[in-house]
Formats: sequence, C-alpha cells, structure tokens
Amino acid sequence: MSLIRLHVADDLLQDGTVLLGPQQTHYLANVMRARTSDEVLLFNGRDGEWLSSIAEIGRRGASLRLLGRYRPQAKGPDLDLVVALVKRARLEIIVEKAAELGARRVRPVVTERTNLSTANLDRLRAIAVEASEQTGRLDVPQILEVAPLGEVLAEWPGDRRLLFCDEAGEAAPALEALRGVEGALWGILIGPEGGFAPEERVAARAVTGAVPVSLGPRILRADTAAIAALSLWQASLGDWRGSAPN
Amino acid sequence: MSLIRLHVADDLLQDGTVLLGPQQTHYLANVMRARTSDEVLLFNGRDGEWLSSIAEIGRRGASLRLLGRYRPQAKGPDLDLVVALVKRARLEIIVEKAAELGARRVRPVVTERTNLSTANLDRLRAIAVEASEQTGRLDVPQILEVAPLGEVLAEWPGDRRLLFCDEAGEAAPALEALRGVEGALWGILIGPEGGFAPEERVAARAVTGAVPVSLGPRILRADTAAIAALSLWQASLGDWRGSAPN
Repeated sequence: MSLIRLHVADDLLQDGTVLLGPQQTHYLANVMRARTSDEVLLFNGRDGEWLSSIAEIGRRGASLRLLGRYRPQAKGPDLDLVVALVKRARLEIIVEKAAELGARRVRPVVTERTNLSTANLDRLRAIAVEASEQTGRLDVPQILEVAPLGEVLAEWPGDRRLLFCDEAGEAAPALEALRGVEGALWGILIGPEGGFAPEERVAARAVTGAVPVSLGPRILRADTAAIAALSLWQASLGDWRGSAPN
Repeated sequence: MSLIRLHVADDLLQDGTVLLGPQQTHYLANVMRARTSDEVLLFNGRDGEWLSSIAEIGRRGASLRLLGRYRPQAKGPDLDLVVALVKRARLEIIVEKAAELGARRVRPVVTERTNLSTANLDRLRAIAVEASEQTGRLDVPQILEVAPLGEVLAEWPGDRRLLFCDEAGEAAPALEALRGVEGALWGILIGPEGGFAPEERVAARAVTGAVPVSLGPRILRADTAAIAALSLWQASLGDWRGSAPN
C-alpha cells in the first residue's frame, strides 16, 4: 500500500514538527486508521515531499515529526484550465481531474450561455487539495476567482498559448493542431454545455497564440471536454511524453 | 437550441408512429416542456436518426409521428472499454463518458484488487442511453455482464488489439506507443484504483496485439484513466482524427 499523503501549510524542515487540525486528524485517525509511529508523507507546494512519523494522535489534533525529505520540490507544466462555470457536481469533477491531470491553475469563467455566476471556491479548493494528495503531485492547483470570459481573453498574456476547444466544428483535430506547436506557458479553454456565443469564438481565436482544436464528432459535456483536452495536451506537449519529472 | 433526442426500441419507418412509455413521456413533458407538434429526433441503433413530431402527449404516454430520416445509421469505431469494477459513482461516470467518447461496449471486470463483484447493470444501461441521446451518437454502447478479468483476457480475440493502461510505469508514453499501430478492432483496459496484481499485468501483456501504455507520472483514478485513454485513442486512431462520420 502506498503511504498516506497530506498537504499542509507549514514549512517542512529537518527535525521539524507539524501539527494537524481536527479535519486532517479525523481523516488520519478515523478514515485511514493511522496510529502513533505510522509514517505519513507531507508536502506544502514549496519544500518537496517529506516523510514524517505520527508522534501523537488524539481526538482533535495530531503531531507529526519530520524524518527527512523524500522527493525534492517539482512542478508540472505551467498549464491553466479556463472553464465555463457549470453545475456544481460537474465543476467539482473538473477540479478533481485538473489536479490529477497536472493543471497548475483553474479559472472558472462566466460566458454568455452560462447560467451561473458564482462557485463555492472553498469547496473547490478542498477538492483540489484532496485530489493532489491522492495523485502524488507536489503542489496543489490554484483555484482562481470567477471572472467574465471576455475579461480573461482581453487580458490574456501574449506569451501564453491558448488551446481553444471549439465545439462548433471548424477547427483542426486536436493532435494535428498541437503537433510541433512551441510554447512553455499554456491555457486550455472549455466552454459551457450550450457552447460559446459567436463573438466569444471570435475573441478566443483572436488571442495571440490561440490554437483552436476540435474534439471529435460528438457533443461532449464540459467535464468530458476538459479531461480530454488536458489528457491530449499532456500527451502531446506535457509531462506524459517521457520521463519528465512530476 | 438543438432538438431533443430520444433512443427508442421500435423500428423507425416512413409514416410510422412511435409510442413512448411513462418515463420518456415525463422527460418530454415535464423536464423538456415539450408540447404537441414539437419536433423530436429518434434513433434506435439500427435505422438512423429520424425527425418526428409529437402527435399526442398525455400524462402517461405520448405518440410521435415519424416525418423522415434525418441521418443514416452510422457507428463509431469498434472499441471496447474493459474496466475494473469501481465504486458506483465512478463507474457511472465511466459509462457516461464511454458513451460520449464513442466506445461501442463497456465490460466491467473483477480483478484481484477489486472489492466489488456486482454492478447495477440496469442503471448503467439507462446512463448509457441518456448519454448517447445527449452526445448525438446513433447507437448506445452495450453494457456487458461483469466478468473476471482473467477470463476476459484468456478469451481475448486474436484480432482485437488491447490498449493496456499500465500504471506500474514501465510502458511507453501512450501517443508514442499508439503511433502507427494498425487494427480495426480495439479494447482499452483500465485497472482498479489499487492497480493490477503482478500476474494480471503479465496476462494483459501476453495478449496478442497488446499495446501497454503509460498515462503520465501521476496516479490517476480509474475514471480519469478511462477518459484519458478513450480520448487519446480517439485522437490517435479513432474518429477524432478528421471528418470521420459519427
């Protein structure tokens, strides 16, 4: 069995101690049935992954003693997922999968055909943490504030490419469109279930470095399109290509 | 707005009439707020897609008059998804996504590290129908009976290739492994969250035409791996490549 992994806020230092709050203690004690002296991996997004040992575990708190660094800090590719606000359950799936598939940031956006304007960011952040713990990455994707799509496109950085998943069907097949495209900074744009409005498609294609792609002949739900695009990007240009570090 | 699509069992013939039962009538009347003379698309997996018009709609039934064939019958690639039985919610996601991503069959399998031995096939079939209606395909993926993985591998047809998603990490990156591989019949094998047992990995690799692949450096949940593998297969070898029919 692989070790339990926990994301913590504290600095991780040789011979340091990390105290857990009630929630992580509950998870350790009651969900994972961990006991004193069991080993746990810790990461904070800065100091790599550390092996620790449970020094004390009570009802409302636990203390872990840091034993040594297990893996140096590493980050996956600099990849943003920009995704139209969809219903809660599907947005939660998208955030979980973005963590597993190595996105660095998730930006929920309001589009013309989006019926929602807010999301529970605390809940999405908790999902991102849990998925990062389970998938083995050493950072947690940042969940950015909800913003209007028009604003995000207007302020899109000139040096960040944009994989634009255009369901309207005139774009090139994804793998073909991505072949040989250069760029270290990327974003992926996924529309709402009702599709982008015509002027949104124009604006997305007008971004410097936009790569419009098609994801096949069937209509995909937003979560499916997001997972497919993240997978194709990782396989074509990201850390699924070879033995790139995590 | 795109038209409502319904999967029906009846033959679809010029000037024919299709009667809907209480469930589909409820969906039409109360969920989609359809009224007499509204148009609905029908498909049955055999006769293509037909345009129909609601002749009568009551509380427990509706009759639809067939107006004409809208699209000829077509099928996506001959692609099986063989997936370890995982918890209900994730298995339901997998079936929904298999329908959207164009799999023709889904086979749940019991592996050594699977804790479940049964699935609610009726429920999974209903999900496959609904996802097929929404994704625009003209057939519904078949949900096969649960079987032991060993049996499925032992009886694997010699002319069907097997994309084996091997999370243990020695396989080639997926796109590299799939490049130039021939074959009209395919399967994709996805393991349980705990991974395959060593002898299962040996058996999967021993299948004639097996293509072991890696899906990157992070640990993926079974649903994520299934969606990623289906997407990569469709983009590399399936109907996402060009203007292949649905």
